[in-house]
Amino acid sequence: MGSFPIATTEFLNPLDHEQFRKQAHLVVDFLADYYSNVEKYPVCSQVKPGFLTETLPDSPPTQPQPIESILQEVQKHIIPGITHWQSPNFFGYFPSSLSTASFLGEMLLTGFDIVGFNWLASPAATELEIIVMEWLLKLLQLPKLFSFSSDGGGVMHSTTCESFVCTLVAAREKKLSQIENEKGETLGKLVVYCSDQTHCSLQKASQIVGISPNNVRAIPTTKSMNFQLCPDALSRAIEADVRAGLVPLYLCLTVGTTQTTAADPIGILCEVAKQFNIWCHVDAAYAGNACILPEFRHFLDGIEDANSFSFNAHKWLLTSLGCCCLWVKDRTDLTKSLSTDPEYLKNKATNSKQVVDYKDWQITLSRRFLSMKLWMVMKSYGVLGLREFIRRHVKMAKHFEALLLIDKRFEVVVPRNFAIVCFRIVPLSESRDEENGNRLTKRLLESLNGTGKVYMTHAVVENIYVIRVAIGGTLTEEKHVDMLWDMVQEHANTLLAC
Amino acid sequence: MGSFPIATTEFLNPLDHEQFRKQAHLVVDFLADYYSNVEKYPVCSQVKPGFLTETLPDSPPTQPQPIESILQEVQKHIIPGITHWQSPNFFGYFPSSLSTASFLGEMLLTGFDIVGFNWLASPAATELEIIVMEWLLKLLQLPKLFSFSSDGGGVMHSTTCESFVCTLVAAREKKLSQIENEKGETLGKLVVYCSDQTHCSLQKASQIVGISPNNVRAIPTTKSMNFQLCPDALSRAIEADVRAGLVPLYLCLTVGTTQTTAADPIGILCEVAKQFNIWCHVDAAYAGNACILPEFRHFLDGIEDANSFSFNAHKWLLTSLGCCCLWVKDRTDLTKSLSTDPEYLKNKATNSKQVVDYKDWQITLSRRFLSMKLWMVMKSYGVLGLREFIRRHVKMAKHFEALLLIDKRFEVVVPRNFAIVCFRIVPLSESRDEENGNRLTKRLLESLNGTGKVYMTHAVVENIYVIRVAIGGTLTEEKHVDMLWDMVQEHANTLLAC
Repeated sequence: MGSFPIATTEFLNPLDHEQFRKQAHLVVDFLADYYSNVEKYPVCSQVKPGFLTETLPDSPPTQPQPIESILQEVQKHIIPGITHWQSPNFFGYFPSSLSTASFLGEMLLTGFDIVGFNWLASPAATELEIIVMEWLLKLLQLPKLFSFSSDGGGVMHSTTCESFVCTLVAAREKKLSQIENEKGETLGKLVVYCSDQTHCSLQKASQIVGISPNNVRAIPTTKSMNFQLCPDALSRAIEADVRAGLVPLYLCLTVGTTQTTAADPIGILCEVAKQFNIWCHVDAAYAGNACILPEFRHFLDGIEDANSFSFNAHKWLLTSLGCCCLWVKDRTDLTKSLSTDPEYLKNKATNSKQVVDYKDWQITLSRRFLSMKLWMVMKSYGVLGLREFIRRHVKMAKHFEALLLIDKRFEVVVPRNFAIVCFRIVPLSESRDEENGNRLTKRLLESLNGTGKVYMTHAVVENIYVIRVAIGGTLTEEKHVDMLWDMVQEHANTLLAC
Repeated sequence: MGSFPIATTEFLNPLDHEQFRKQAHLVVDFLADYYSNVEKYPVCSQVKPGFLTETLPDSPPTQPQPIESILQEVQKHIIPGITHWQSPNFFGYFPSSLSTASFLGEMLLTGFDIVGFNWLASPAATELEIIVMEWLLKLLQLPKLFSFSSDGGGVMHSTTCESFVCTLVAAREKKLSQIENEKGETLGKLVVYCSDQTHCSLQKASQIVGISPNNVRAIPTTKSMNFQLCPDALSRAIEADVRAGLVPLYLCLTVGTTQTTAADPIGILCEVAKQFNIWCHVDAAYAGNACILPEFRHFLDGIEDANSFSFNAHKWLLTSLGCCCLWVKDRTDLTKSLSTDPEYLKNKATNSKQVVDYKDWQITLSRRFLSMKLWMVMKSYGVLGLREFIRRHVKMAKHFEALLLIDKRFEVVVPRNFAIVCFRIVPLSESRDEENGNRLTKRLLESLNGTGKVYMTHAVVENIYVIRVAIGGTLTEEKHVDMLWDMVQEHANTLLAC
């Protein structure tokens, strides 16, 4: 053993509580300083591909390094390569609205580091998840049908993609069990429906569970219908498939699409799904968060007719990545298709059938104690705080939209539903050419992002290039939105003067 | 808005850096105290089903609660419901070996809370992952074929189940593209091979990707062959399927099975797979960690012939849940089957093809900055520290095994490969009945776990009930193993005296 010189007695236990205390305090201060300085960094990282692989050594260190020098390296090498999702001037994609409470919850859940695959492996993890999911059910005014007190129930997944995969598998197994045909043959005939605005993860989830891309119908939407899925178009697509001998399986509706936050009308579309015995999932990844406000709850009207519903607390409910909350109306749909029962996990609690074993509600066996962070968030901010948080962003978005509406150079391309504003530069009157508007709008976005002072992303709908302003950062205040507006005007002035 | 009384000016920003600092310091101290007291709690939670749902309110709080009272609630209500995976007396399942460095890494990655689906969304997240995966590749002496410098590459998934799903989908799409038949029809003919000792997640992953449970061959193993998969038995199973018109797809080998840490011989089994053009995945979830030690590396001999390899750093490499490291020999196998390219994620870096977009290597779109924690671990402990850590546990396990071997009442049921010892009470000589040994061993386990002072789990192999002693807790020292041995003897004395 001569080649490994560290003696057992010299190597400190890697979970020594005094060293833990000292080092973790250092990192708390490091992060508190980061938040107080976050506006000083370019919002979107300005590095070039290979910046870090060219800088760091290509082999791991032989000897242990002190935490102080590691933190210096984070500051010097890592932070320049970070796109600062927590910057108040980050308006890209969907928000990632961290909070102190969620951070503390992550500390606790990481600190306990339990592997809660079943009830026994850590009863508190399972029971707190049930409690939090029932709290959220009330907060969102979801029907009792989705509650553990009925045949339903809620579970925390990492992201929407995971919820898509699990509900697709549940729907698939249910459908296959109802059909007499040879299983492999029928599998090739199953069809998934969505709109052309549905998140790309549905395509991928379908592919993962064995449904051919040819059997995913992304039904076109139009600007004139605010990019909502049209019930008639859905019916026609399904009927055509049935005539062709295919088997309609799954419909995904979206409340708050990625590009423009369009909201599909749930009730009427669920009715179509019902007629054809199709599983209906409602994906409200972003906008579901807003539905904790009474004034937005109507977007979920009709949800009682869906089979499953999910939203991402990590998008806009002060919770860190990932925390997708999924409810199903019939929990046995999930457990019938996702259960495992190996000898080494058998135990009395499971045998008693008095407990939930969440491993049978998800893809993976091992699972983090996710409920801890959402529980911390709900306790720390209360229902009033959570509602106030969402409402602030909506108010800021309304303000930004109002500023755009009075400047004739800009067009708000779709009506604002939540806290995302989609706008563009109106094509110059002499050109009457959409391409002209697209070019100008794209140049405006690149010019603004190029400053490093703000960051937004884009969408393309009906061949119109739009800038998406997603207002939802925890640190974002009205002054940041005002600064953004000043910058938009200034850069548009320059651009349009050329 | 009268029903929501909190005024905008009164509600503190939920990421206020001074409040963050104050509250996070509190939680650091809470956790440091937890580690110093962890031995005082029953290792396995003693609560009854419903303990928490009956205690906590069934609606979320309306008003914000102070952090001090929340932490009191954690202490009073949550901790009694936790099974203490970080206790030095936890010997159940596989270890969950947290370290301070990993905890600090989780703090940083949660603190930045970036959503690194592609390179642009946070370049440092992608590049640090590439760096860490290449470091690990060297540490494990994996062939260059799995490196980014060749056609391969590594990615961090949450758990092995995710790696199973992704490699199964990659293998499936590759196979289907090679076959002219109708896709849906062929899908029903694909067959997955493993041993009866393979982790249950493979069955589930196969089900998820659309392979019928009837087409998963769990080939029986025997105690006489140390529960290794037999190449001849594998060949015979494949040949029978081919004769029946089925299509062999995927072989999963295990180095360090869940029940007894058996290790399949990779080289010779890969040869069989090659003959039939089968994708071969090597799952070394637990034992892969030990392969950073030169004296264990031989367990991976032949790995150059596999298509993919994964291990879980969260099991035994001082890293918190989840951190499954997966390498593939041909990265396009993954990206061809898991890529998405929606308009709203298009960007110049992706177009340049000079960057890795990890969203195309995994199930989900959004991904946490996982490399941060493993980088912190490797920096903080160095190669020497990591090796020393594993070696300590192996030494303790050898010690425990030696104690068992000199007490004739016990039998070490399978030879110890790593740091897990499987033993039982030998059936009483007058009975000559395996059932007698099983009954006694089960009663011994229940009696030991019932004290709350230690926790172990069980396995059943060839109808023999065994107690698994998994030595791998970060806080576990030789004195804890000695205490366990004292308890085993004491409880066996009582039991055998009856």
